[in-house]
Amino acid sequence: IETKLPKVGTTIFSVMSHLAVQHKAVNLGQGFPDFEPPQALRDALSEAMAKGLNQYAPGIGTPALREQIALKTERLYGHKFSPDSDITVTSGATEALFAAIAAVVRAGEEVIVFDPAYDSYEPAIELQGARAVHIPLTVPSFSIDWQRVRDAITPRTRMILINSPHNPSGAVLSAQDLDELAAIVRDTPIMVLSDEVYEHIVYDGAEHQSVLRHPELAARSIVVSSFGKTYHCTGWKVGYAVAPTKLSAEFRKVHQYLTFCTFHPAQVAFAQFLASAPEHYLELPAFYQAKRDRFRQLLAPSRLKLLDVPGGYFQLVDYSSIRNEDDVAFCEWLVKEGGVAAIPLTPFYAKAPGTHLVRLCFAKSDATMEAAAERLCKL
Amino acid sequence: IETKLPKVGTTIFSVMSHLAVQHKAVNLGQGFPDFEPPQALRDALSEAMAKGLNQYAPGIGTPALREQIALKTERLYGHKFSPDSDITVTSGATEALFAAIAAVVRAGEEVIVFDPAYDSYEPAIELQGARAVHIPLTVPSFSIDWQRVRDAITPRTRMILINSPHNPSGAVLSAQDLDELAAIVRDTPIMVLSDEVYEHIVYDGAEHQSVLRHPELAARSIVVSSFGKTYHCTGWKVGYAVAPTKLSAEFRKVHQYLTFCTFHPAQVAFAQFLASAPEHYLELPAFYQAKRDRFRQLLAPSRLKLLDVPGGYFQLVDYSSIRNEDDVAFCEWLVKEGGVAAIPLTPFYAKAPGTHLVRLCFAKSDATMEAAAERLCKL
Ligand SMILES: CSCCC(=O)C(=O)O
Ligand SMILES: CSCCC(=O)C(=O)O
Repeated sequence: IETKLPKVGTTIFSVMSHLAVQHKAVNLGQGFPDFEPPQALRDALSEAMAKGLNQYAPGIGTPALREQIALKTERLYGHKFSPDSDITVTSGATEALFAAIAAVVRAGEEVIVFDPAYDSYEPAIELQGARAVHIPLTVPSFSIDWQRVRDAITPRTRMILINSPHNPSGAVLSAQDLDELAAIVRDTPIMVLSDEVYEHIVYDGAEHQSVLRHPELAARSIVVSSFGKTYHCTGWKVGYAVAPTKLSAEFRKVHQYLTFCTFHPAQVAFAQFLASAPEHYLELPAFYQAKRDRFRQLLAPSRLKLLDVPGGYFQLVDYSSIRNEDDVAFCEWLVKEGGVAAIPLTPFYAKAPGTHLVRLCFAKSDATMEAAAERLCKL
Repeated sequence: IETKLPKVGTTIFSVMSHLAVQHKAVNLGQGFPDFEPPQALRDALSEAMAKGLNQYAPGIGTPALREQIALKTERLYGHKFSPDSDITVTSGATEALFAAIAAVVRAGEEVIVFDPAYDSYEPAIELQGARAVHIPLTVPSFSIDWQRVRDAITPRTRMILINSPHNPSGAVLSAQDLDELAAIVRDTPIMVLSDEVYEHIVYDGAEHQSVLRHPELAARSIVVSSFGKTYHCTGWKVGYAVAPTKLSAEFRKVHQYLTFCTFHPAQVAFAQFLASAPEHYLELPAFYQAKRDRFRQLLAPSRLKLLDVPGGYFQLVDYSSIRNEDDVAFCEWLVKEGGVAAIPLTPFYAKAPGTHLVRLCFAKSDATMEAAAERLCKL
């Protein structure tokens, strides 16, 4: 059997989590919290099972959950979407990203992605027979050079894929970025896919600039988010896509044959939790900002150079004063010899720029951060 | 936006379930039980949440669950697969089917499907830029005419997609069918995708002829199954794929970017349940055979003609002595005027053969069956 995805191996997240277990390393690689979702959410899920909500949910998601997503979207971003026709629940954001690409992008077309890019984007594009056009973000701010985007547009450009807060860098787009993007796609058939899974995790009083705040962009975008990052349950795999009716119709055609529907009791639980604690996520910036600041403080004595973290729950560190090797080699050494699992940036680049940066997840308890920092400060 | 799937509307299952709610009909359409998964399974899921297993599971599934699937597969079908390299847990069988097709089938290739065919097959094939080649099953036995298969093979044939016990008809493949299939694919690069989600529901003492019983076929097949039908939890969306190592490697490349992983607490619960009650599914044939026989008895006074049901949990009925219209029109009339939701067969055909058959689900409590039968006997 000849592979359809010659560039793809096992995703770096699985590789590093596997190595972390093998070497008993502190796992700051794959992005997941080591604390629990709210008890009320777990209770609501158990209750949903007890109530007998164990059969197929509606394929597009339960009405109650779509309603809650619509309310939240309106409250936060001022944009009114119809739960019936514009919001679709998916089995995690990964499914939503794949469905969006599969629904819209055709063989021979191009999708602009910004490197470092989350590693599911390109394989999803390639499986459509389309091509990812890679534009590197400007280091170390990880901001978009819009002139490079303008230069990359061709008649085959079908989609621009943005991600803010950005994984792995934590960079956030500004309102001006969205205006630049809108000016570029105006009068073209290019649509926008916006990965906003860290939407509620922005720091220092900043506001998340969702594409949904920008009516012109919202009219041609599929916006993807997830509950995993917001409610500390990355393993529950409930995500969603918000898009105008016509785009949602195409999205749903694909979604219904990708997974049909998502784990029903969790949908019931999220709908109930969002209704009873609609602004729970407002606590997230302070919660994670304290973790970020604590982590940075713990790493201050180390020889790692810490980059700024405007959003998300990852800290990029420059290890060049410790070892002079590429980031994949450094991460292999670090997990084996240093006892800490990190994520290298190279796998997220078409052409790695030779930076000496790796990603550390700080969605961790104090104890985990301290254990990791103790090891990292010894390097 | 121009659609990539011009033939696709909303899946008939969603359409009919929606109409059932709207018209307060007894819903024998979409295939799901109206009884509950074992209490021990629900408890195990709640315990997994309490134990803190709420973050990402390994992308390929938890080791314990893959181990249980391997044990079951060996016990039942005598074929030893490696949990590490040959078994992958997915977000329902639908995801597994899509991932299998996306991993193997390329633009310009052909996949042989047998009509009536489950409605997710063809869109998944078309999204690869490939073509579904439809071969109708012989009515009313819904058996495969292997000469038609031989005639349909071309140099572009990449896959043959079989489904036993068959949805919607309940037909089951025999050991001779598998030999025929093996003879056809021998010395070709054609692989087999086998949808066996009703594997544990075969009647009258028959044995399910899994492709995994046939070493020659097993070496070139991806076999898909699911826990939803077996443990009465279609809304939990945990399925899996079994395939030889090289095929599994390709399957996993796609799976990791479709959904990455599946709801973690349910995987823990299934692993625990399978370990403690490994042969629970042996009760299924008797359990569903009693339902089938009860349902047929209840419908005996009606003007519906009942076809044989060798497997699965659907009863096909011929309504031609009641109304002379196509099955889609009949189902619309039935849900509105007759108070019962059924599934027409036409949506599962490339060229509908003009039979007057619709599908009724009997995975229902006595009360539901009786309520439906009362209405159906009045027609
Ligand atoms: C789906 S596993 C990877 C999780 C994640 O989003 C990350 O670590 O970046
Ligand atoms: C995924 S909804 C359809 C359920 C099913 O398998 C059926 O009714 O045939």
